[in-house]
Amino acid sequence: MKRFLHVKNVPKLYCANVDSFKYSKTVPTHELLTRLNYISHPKAGLVNWLPAGLSSMNKISNVVRKRMNEIDFEELGLSLISHNSSWKKTGRWETGLEFFKLDGKEYLLVPTAEEEITNHVASHLTSYKNLPLLYYQINPKFRNEKRPRSGLLRGKEFIMKDAYSFDIDEKSAMTTYNNVIGAYTRIFQDLRLPFTKAAADTGEIGGSLSHEWHYLHETGEDTVFSCDNCGSVSNVEKTLSFPVEETEVADVSVTYFMTKDKSTLVCAYYPKDRELQPNFVKNEVPDLNVHITDQELILAEFSDPDTLISKKIIRIMDARLNSRSNFPDFPISFINRSLITTLSDIPIVSAEEFEICGECEDGKLHGNRAIEIGHTFYLGDKYSKPLGCSVEVPVGNKTERKDLMMGCYGIGVSRIIASIGEINKDDKGLNWPRIVAPWEVTVVEAGNGNKEFEEVYRYLNQAGLDYRADNRPKVGLGKKINQSNLMGIPITVILGKKFPIIELEIRGKKYGDSWKQVYESRDFEWEVEYENGQDIKHFVHKDGLSRALEGLLEDM
Amino acid sequence: MKRFLHVKNVPKLYCANVDSFKYSKTVPTHELLTRLNYISHPKAGLVNWLPAGLSSMNKISNVVRKRMNEIDFEELGLSLISHNSSWKKTGRWETGLEFFKLDGKEYLLVPTAEEEITNHVASHLTSYKNLPLLYYQINPKFRNEKRPRSGLLRGKEFIMKDAYSFDIDEKSAMTTYNNVIGAYTRIFQDLRLPFTKAAADTGEIGGSLSHEWHYLHETGEDTVFSCDNCGSVSNVEKTLSFPVEETEVADVSVTYFMTKDKSTLVCAYYPKDRELQPNFVKNEVPDLNVHITDQELILAEFSDPDTLISKKIIRIMDARLNSRSNFPDFPISFINRSLITTLSDIPIVSAEEFEICGECEDGKLHGNRAIEIGHTFYLGDKYSKPLGCSVEVPVGNKTERKDLMMGCYGIGVSRIIASIGEINKDDKGLNWPRIVAPWEVTVVEAGNGNKEFEEVYRYLNQAGLDYRADNRPKVGLGKKINQSNLMGIPITVILGKKFPIIELEIRGKKYGDSWKQVYESRDFEWEVEYENGQDIKHFVHKDGLSRALEGLLEDM
Repeated sequence: MKRFLHVKNVPKLYCANVDSFKYSKTVPTHELLTRLNYISHPKAGLVNWLPAGLSSMNKISNVVRKRMNEIDFEELGLSLISHNSSWKKTGRWETGLEFFKLDGKEYLLVPTAEEEITNHVASHLTSYKNLPLLYYQINPKFRNEKRPRSGLLRGKEFIMKDAYSFDIDEKSAMTTYNNVIGAYTRIFQDLRLPFTKAAADTGEIGGSLSHEWHYLHETGEDTVFSCDNCGSVSNVEKTLSFPVEETEVADVSVTYFMTKDKSTLVCAYYPKDRELQPNFVKNEVPDLNVHITDQELILAEFSDPDTLISKKIIRIMDARLNSRSNFPDFPISFINRSLITTLSDIPIVSAEEFEICGECEDGKLHGNRAIEIGHTFYLGDKYSKPLGCSVEVPVGNKTERKDLMMGCYGIGVSRIIASIGEINKDDKGLNWPRIVAPWEVTVVEAGNGNKEFEEVYRYLNQAGLDYRADNRPKVGLGKKINQSNLMGIPITVILGKKFPIIELEIRGKKYGDSWKQVYESRDFEWEVEYENGQDIKHFVHKDGLSRALEGLLEDM
Repeated sequence: MKRFLHVKNVPKLYCANVDSFKYSKTVPTHELLTRLNYISHPKAGLVNWLPAGLSSMNKISNVVRKRMNEIDFEELGLSLISHNSSWKKTGRWETGLEFFKLDGKEYLLVPTAEEEITNHVASHLTSYKNLPLLYYQINPKFRNEKRPRSGLLRGKEFIMKDAYSFDIDEKSAMTTYNNVIGAYTRIFQDLRLPFTKAAADTGEIGGSLSHEWHYLHETGEDTVFSCDNCGSVSNVEKTLSFPVEETEVADVSVTYFMTKDKSTLVCAYYPKDRELQPNFVKNEVPDLNVHITDQELILAEFSDPDTLISKKIIRIMDARLNSRSNFPDFPISFINRSLITTLSDIPIVSAEEFEICGECEDGKLHGNRAIEIGHTFYLGDKYSKPLGCSVEVPVGNKTERKDLMMGCYGIGVSRIIASIGEINKDDKGLNWPRIVAPWEVTVVEAGNGNKEFEEVYRYLNQAGLDYRADNRPKVGLGKKINQSNLMGIPITVILGKKFPIIELEIRGKKYGDSWKQVYESRDFEWEVEYENGQDIKHFVHKDGLSRALEGLLEDM
């Protein structure tokens, strides 16, 4: 349809793949995103962002951008290719099983950018007065995932917002960390869906303080526990728990560890039907080497009667065990009992639903499946020390060189699309919050077009509304409306016979009802049709169309 | 400086590297961009886009985006990793000496995306009614450049806008091609600098019609010729030329070629002091194999007297030669003269300044050094045929499968920054058109700040002006102004003792004088200081600040 004014149309291949497709809520979200041409996968784990998907991704990126800018983080874009030298200095080159290495394995495609940003600051910082330095970027990251799955959730390439902070000391770094916590809270509030911030283990990235940000959902691959008394929330690798009451544990398993200096054998005893969390054992014996897990190798280290005299043995009993439990035999024969220390009542297994919270030792734990969408880490000097990222600081009337204290903060932008898609979908298809939708309003016309309708597009353009017209020839009106709903577009505007009265069909979830204020103060015709207390249709005079749309979208 | 309102500040490491740096116009632009923290190079050929550089790049991208959207191209973002299978089908895998190959050489980092976009269309197009399909993306591209140089001009990674079109036939593809020509013209007009569109050879990308888009500048590595009679413009690989008058050429060189079917020896004769253009020889003998250049190998093919009888020989004489020239001996002895065809007066060498235009055979050619910033190609079915990108088309009352007719269209976004930086720099440093500047206005304050100045930031925020405040402590006012000029920011706003009168220092080039209309209709105090007829300073009352700035920026 040729018009003088510029009409923004739906993408050309919009819904081209759904004619033979019977939607039901059980269709996996990644299949839905593919059928609806949000994305495509040229190969497993690789992603093409098609026009609708790119638009949604840019919208999420802009939410992130706004909130990171507000706390004075500066946006930059680091090279996607990184030389291995820094990764060797930080020790990550060896552990990087999932790196994409290239060009004679001298370079890699960046999975995260701690090394590069630390190099950047090390070479550019001239005075401690410029601290803190706060940077973020939103760009592709790479991981040579051997078993990519679920479309956007675990792929070989993904879009991530990664932020990095450099402070003069831990105190100032904690202020920065808390500012980021605030920005993350605002970002996830902007995105409308309920979220959870959970204390987390720092894992391979390192550092000493960490939170994971989750959407709670039954399809999640993580587990998050919250306490109904103290309110603390943590992921399964961080949730300490005590048994509800003294329970009878029949069979006991043991797992052996040793300390890094090989001086101490650590025997962790726990119920046979429970999962040991080695990190919890490490909490008790900080020098524990959790990477060496070969039980025979460990025991061999402690089997020579001649050297055993100089070694120590620590036995750690999980809180669920008691003296009546059925312990396995001790595998080493000649033991000087005075060398053995026994720690009892220590929580060393993964928590279970309704156990007692290890934080307050009072409330009950409640577990939820969760999808991780962000992660914040306080890193300390883990990267700044090996990469020489330090600065001269005045101390009295001298100066001293100090390593900078860092933090890093990720948000999985492409993961958020997959997660919100999954969580919000319903019987009619996808259902986006307006801030994530590829466009906010689909405009369809009944009949063969009407010259008068042009005026509507002019209004929409003037108001800067984020609409797309579906003017595909020979596609029926009902089908156009259904497809807009299937795509998850918040509102469909129907231009029909009742013009200048225009019908609005509401698809998006309402997260508020501030539209009623606009409705009460209307000076144009506006009728509402309700179903089960929900406003499902609005009939608005063209003169009020943009005000009604703005009011309704405000709540979505 | 802490304020209640949000003040947008210059980047933290803004100009941190220039204190020990003496600027002069001879400082190479890529060094300047690095010293001013627009970019950094973690390794030769790799680029980190620092906050100022990223901002300029995003601004250019947005100009491109606007103009491509206007001609109904849809933006998407294809995977940066591509499987080799399609590249083998199109024959580009073997020729790709500069590919970054990864993961057992099964994948590559994309240098351009003809293969992937053609696959996408082949698998998603359901009806010819959806044609034309028009796509573009703005994202990183990769080339394993062995000798990266000049910062952004020839690197291992760069930001490119690449667009692709799919049409039902050549006629419709030509309409698309011309629409792109229009959009490119508007893009480069938006960017303010004079540019040239030159007919170009299609080279490795292939196809049959091609234009290069250039900035003419003495630092360019390309040469572009234009005719002062017919106005045709072409690059050196496409410019046919005739000698000014019959000149005496003493020594003649010869280069041998053969046809792909090895049936014909082609002997190209040309002046010894000129550069042969094999493409021009190929114009005369379309089956010519320009890739085989080993002279001995070629002559060996034609040295067997027994088979020579079945072969042909074509002698091509450059237009600059005549019978008095000193030709080399013919290297093959037994020749049946009837097998030899001689073509004379053919232009086969690179044109030179003031030679006669090969198009109109009348005007004089003028050569200019040029920096290539864009390239447009009509591809025909070069990619659609091997990749099976076709569609059913009704022909009478039957249907036929037709290969789609493609075009591809590149713009070097990162190159444009380097080029405009180079072309526009002057005695004071960089000098950006406002649409490319990382920000448009730097605000500096004399003295120790003044509570009243807050009002100015409030005005600037309200007007949505793209300013940054330079509130670095202990940096003098003069230095701040000089650094803003060195960075190439169009205007510096100086808040000082004369407040509420505010001084504006003009740095940017004026490409118009529509500001004078705003000046004539002013209803606030506004004095102008001229030097050599140029307005170099403005003194504006705070109430008119945003209107004066908007008026002045309009021309920059």
